[in-house]
Amino acid sequence: MNAGKEPFAWILNIGSELTLGITVNTNGAWIARKLSFLGFSVRRILCTPDDEEAIAVLREAIRQGVKLVVTTGGLGPTYDDRTLELVSRALERRLELNKDALKFVEEFYKEKGLALTEERIKMAYMPEGATALKNPIGAAPACIIKAGETTIICLPGVPKEMQAVFELHVEPLLKEMVPEARVFEAYLYVEGVPESSIAPSLKRLVREKPHLYVKTHPLGHEVKGPRLKIHFMLRGAEPKAKEELISAVEGLRQEAVKLGGSAVYELNYSKDHPSNSSVVRE
Amino acid sequence: MNAGKEPFAWILNIGSELTLGITVNTNGAWIARKLSFLGFSVRRILCTPDDEEAIAVLREAIRQGVKLVVTTGGLGPTYDDRTLELVSRALERRLELNKDALKFVEEFYKEKGLALTEERIKMAYMPEGATALKNPIGAAPACIIKAGETTIICLPGVPKEMQAVFELHVEPLLKEMVPEARVFEAYLYVEGVPESSIAPSLKRLVREKPHLYVKTHPLGHEVKGPRLKIHFMLRGAEPKAKEELISAVEGLRQEAVKLGGSAVYELNYSKDHPSNSSVVRE
Repeated sequence: MNAGKEPFAWILNIGSELTLGITVNTNGAWIARKLSFLGFSVRRILCTPDDEEAIAVLREAIRQGVKLVVTTGGLGPTYDDRTLELVSRALERRLELNKDALKFVEEFYKEKGLALTEERIKMAYMPEGATALKNPIGAAPACIIKAGETTIICLPGVPKEMQAVFELHVEPLLKEMVPEARVFEAYLYVEGVPESSIAPSLKRLVREKPHLYVKTHPLGHEVKGPRLKIHFMLRGAEPKAKEELISAVEGLRQEAVKLGGSAVYELNYSKDHPSNSSVVRE
Repeated sequence: MNAGKEPFAWILNIGSELTLGITVNTNGAWIARKLSFLGFSVRRILCTPDDEEAIAVLREAIRQGVKLVVTTGGLGPTYDDRTLELVSRALERRLELNKDALKFVEEFYKEKGLALTEERIKMAYMPEGATALKNPIGAAPACIIKAGETTIICLPGVPKEMQAVFELHVEPLLKEMVPEARVFEAYLYVEGVPESSIAPSLKRLVREKPHLYVKTHPLGHEVKGPRLKIHFMLRGAEPKAKEELISAVEGLRQEAVKLGGSAVYELNYSKDHPSNSSVVRE
């Protein structure tokens, strides 16, 4: 799937626990799949510590005119939750008490009968001009900030909270940003053919169809027990794109059988709108 | 753990399956933990597709004088395995048939009674001046390339192969690059104290000891059932650094108890040399 007219996106997962290898970055993949189905081309997923490195990345994204940057992490109450301070510094804007964010934080703690301490109020400080987004299951509000051509969306790091904010606030907004996006996806499972034996057929297919994304994932051993998962993705309108995808996959399936293997495929596509919450399997 | 004199490292995981969110980047975390214990400061973990984006990242790392870049993925036989071509272009060096790499590939397929096809020979093409590293369990050789101040190490993407090459060839080499590294690590588990309640104590501790890495990971619900895992790391020589770490963790444990919670801790340290293969738990 060649980068065509799709708007570019970067995902920036902030937290030393990531760059120290304590935590595997599952948020990056979750958001990447969402953004891909929403019609964005994810060019970089980055992890940085909670320090100046994140500022450098944000400035670079803005300088390159990347359309969308989604950050995760660093919105909580502790000293090391520094994302919004780092965003402010990257944009050279003041960090100010955001009224909506303060209301969300107040409501959250009032409901639990807890006082508003300095650390809790800290979560309501946001870069000038930010729009606060209510976190439906946690204390820390998220936010959206426009910076030139770039929209920056800052989400919490706890996966459940991040996903809840994304689906509640971010997804509807991004559907408006890329209204025409539509994605078809298929997996071809091949057994008994080494990756290097099917490689010439794949090469031919990709030369013929540069707009088709094809990727092989070796699951077994290259020679002793070869098993391959081949992943296809194609953007486009129905019925043309869907038919083109099926014909490409079926063609490769027949080649695998000719090479002495067995192969089956599975088709996924976004029904009403590209989002993996509405993917149909055939 | 403030970035001090530790050499900087970037990890670059190449593959559209990562930026499409199909595959979670477990390689990034595995290598990050290894490099941290080997005395490097990992400043960025990046995922890019198998295209020009990887070239941009490599050039940026070299321009910034990053000491070490470890890449994964894209060394296999198929058309979309493009890492060494992309590295060549980033360095403006020829992609040439590497004699050692060819020997490794020949041996691998000869043992299985398979012919050397064009696709298999492709895996032996490496940037001019690269040193090939034998992959002890897979077909694709890895390699090391020096570019100015930067050492680039290209590893396979299949986790088992990547880990095998890292432990066999890369780890001994990096131990020579940073001979004096030594890391102490502790986890403090706190129950019954909300993150925002212990935040003032944490803030004080970090102000007093800026060289100590401390990070809280909320595991439960901030108010309903708060559980925290607090992670400490400290670089330094024995016995001073170990004693300093224990005293910091014990101090925070007592604060948590004063706040009405319960808390226990666990200490890890690298015994002979920093590598998580030789971590001791107390």
